[in-house]
Amino acid sequence: MSPTDVVVALDVGGTGMKCALVRPDGAVLHTERHPTDAGRGPDAVVDTILAVADGLAGKARADGLTPAALGVAVPGVIDEARGVAVWSANVGFRDVPLRDLARARLGLPTALGHDVRAGGLAEARLGAGREDRHVLFVAIGTGIAAAHVVDGAAATGAHGAAGEIGHVLVRPGGPVCGCGRPGCLEAVASAAAIGRRYAALAGVPATAADVAERAAAGEPLAADVWREAVEALADGLATGQALFDVEAVVLGGGLARAGALLLDPLRAALHERMTFHREPRLVAAALGDEAGCLGAALLALDSLEK
Amino acid sequence: MSPTDVVVALDVGGTGMKCALVRPDGAVLHTERHPTDAGRGPDAVVDTILAVADGLAGKARADGLTPAALGVAVPGVIDEARGVAVWSANVGFRDVPLRDLARARLGLPTALGHDVRAGGLAEARLGAGREDRHVLFVAIGTGIAAAHVVDGAAATGAHGAAGEIGHVLVRPGGPVCGCGRPGCLEAVASAAAIGRRYAALAGVPATAADVAERAAAGEPLAADVWREAVEALADGLATGQALFDVEAVVLGGGLARAGALLLDPLRAALHERMTFHREPRLVAAALGDEAGCLGAALLALDSLEK
Repeated sequence: MSPTDVVVALDVGGTGMKCALVRPDGAVLHTERHPTDAGRGPDAVVDTILAVADGLAGKARADGLTPAALGVAVPGVIDEARGVAVWSANVGFRDVPLRDLARARLGLPTALGHDVRAGGLAEARLGAGREDRHVLFVAIGTGIAAAHVVDGAAATGAHGAAGEIGHVLVRPGGPVCGCGRPGCLEAVASAAAIGRRYAALAGVPATAADVAERAAAGEPLAADVWREAVEALADGLATGQALFDVEAVVLGGGLARAGALLLDPLRAALHERMTFHREPRLVAAALGDEAGCLGAALLALDSLEK
Repeated sequence: MSPTDVVVALDVGGTGMKCALVRPDGAVLHTERHPTDAGRGPDAVVDTILAVADGLAGKARADGLTPAALGVAVPGVIDEARGVAVWSANVGFRDVPLRDLARARLGLPTALGHDVRAGGLAEARLGAGREDRHVLFVAIGTGIAAAHVVDGAAATGAHGAAGEIGHVLVRPGGPVCGCGRPGCLEAVASAAAIGRRYAALAGVPATAADVAERAAAGEPLAADVWREAVEALADGLATGQALFDVEAVVLGGGLARAGALLLDPLRAALHERMTFHREPRLVAAALGDEAGCLGAALLALDSLEK
């Protein structure tokens, strides 16, 4: 690649798109944010994605750079091999051949990826897991999902649906999950679930961040709710470690912003659950909410190498 | 490889060793079984492994064949990259450099593998999963363990401990597992656990096969115990599918010999748990108790290709 080459990277979420121009060495030259406005329907969202990507490619050329490829990360079930967004509730996609649409519009090699897998790729290669060969990246926000990254490649599964650690069973007969089953990790320990649980018990609305703060300040109810979530997370991570045997578990997403309030008790609870397992390092993500966009850039760069 | 080349394959278990001479095309030319007699201690077991392997190589030569490599599969935590049996309760191994010992004794390229991963490799490449790229092989016997095989390679994890599906949490606060934690899948749904549960409730000793038979014959207590185990297995497999997203789940080990008595209700219980997931085919293993030995042969053949 020439020294003026860049890739165009987009991380498309339910509310906003994080966009960047990224050099092959990972340096970010330019960033933009745009609203997704998913309520407009999938066709309008696709139009916006293509227009924003095209605009970034134009911006690169205007700056004397050469856009060499495009990487787009999207939530949901993503068939990366075929470049199709199979199913994505947040942005209303159903079997959208986004890779081919983008290729046709921009005339650039294009890679389509899954948002959490892209984030995990970036954390494993450039972030908190860069010293490790086997990394489990777990994003805890409204939902919970994971990316299992080995030697710099994220496992996709047979149908693009691997890594759904939010839907491992941790509390049989427990709260019903968005997926319809009771007791999924996500229904007990996502940021949304923690807020809901506290609100139901305290009778006042609260976010997971509120609960973390009140627990730290010694409020018994908040401490109980926080502890229950931490125990469930430890159960989910122990299950992940039993199956994957990684060196590092990297926690990202909104809940990880609680920092030591989450990591310290979670590390202790995970330690308690390690019997035959080798205990993984449990660390916070290093790249913040740019991880997905950086991962989209890595996917674009990888596609050029193939 | 020449048409007279064969590999020597050993699958070492707690009670017996299954041994074979296998051609590169997978054809088995000769088989032997030997007792492991693990009570003699690890040094004696290693001596037997080396003597049996050496004997098989000699037998091959006597038959006009050329032993080209050796593959040995062992239970426990196996570091395949270093060729070390890190920990194996069944045969008493602790950090045994079995690959180098065998190489020195036989003068042949040697591969050391994990018994369940070797079995999974064979089922995925030659057995019930041979049409699928993404396979989860689950062996249910005294314990429960799995091998996740993608494109003909079994995931080992960072420390050789991947695939321990017997230790995913399915019944918090449930029966205490051999690993020391309560509620592991293995503590509820292994063949040993099913026998124990029925014996405790009925007051008479029973094997899992007895329970399956009595359940099929309409005995209510046996039917309850069997159903509880099937539900727990479905929970464990659903967790596996959420994380791995495979095309086929292949069931092996002693409990799979129950055939339709296990597969039919388990398939229904798994179906019930599939929400966002793509439902995998659930099938019985095709290679019987030869899978581990065939897998050891595949590891030996793979090591020659490298």
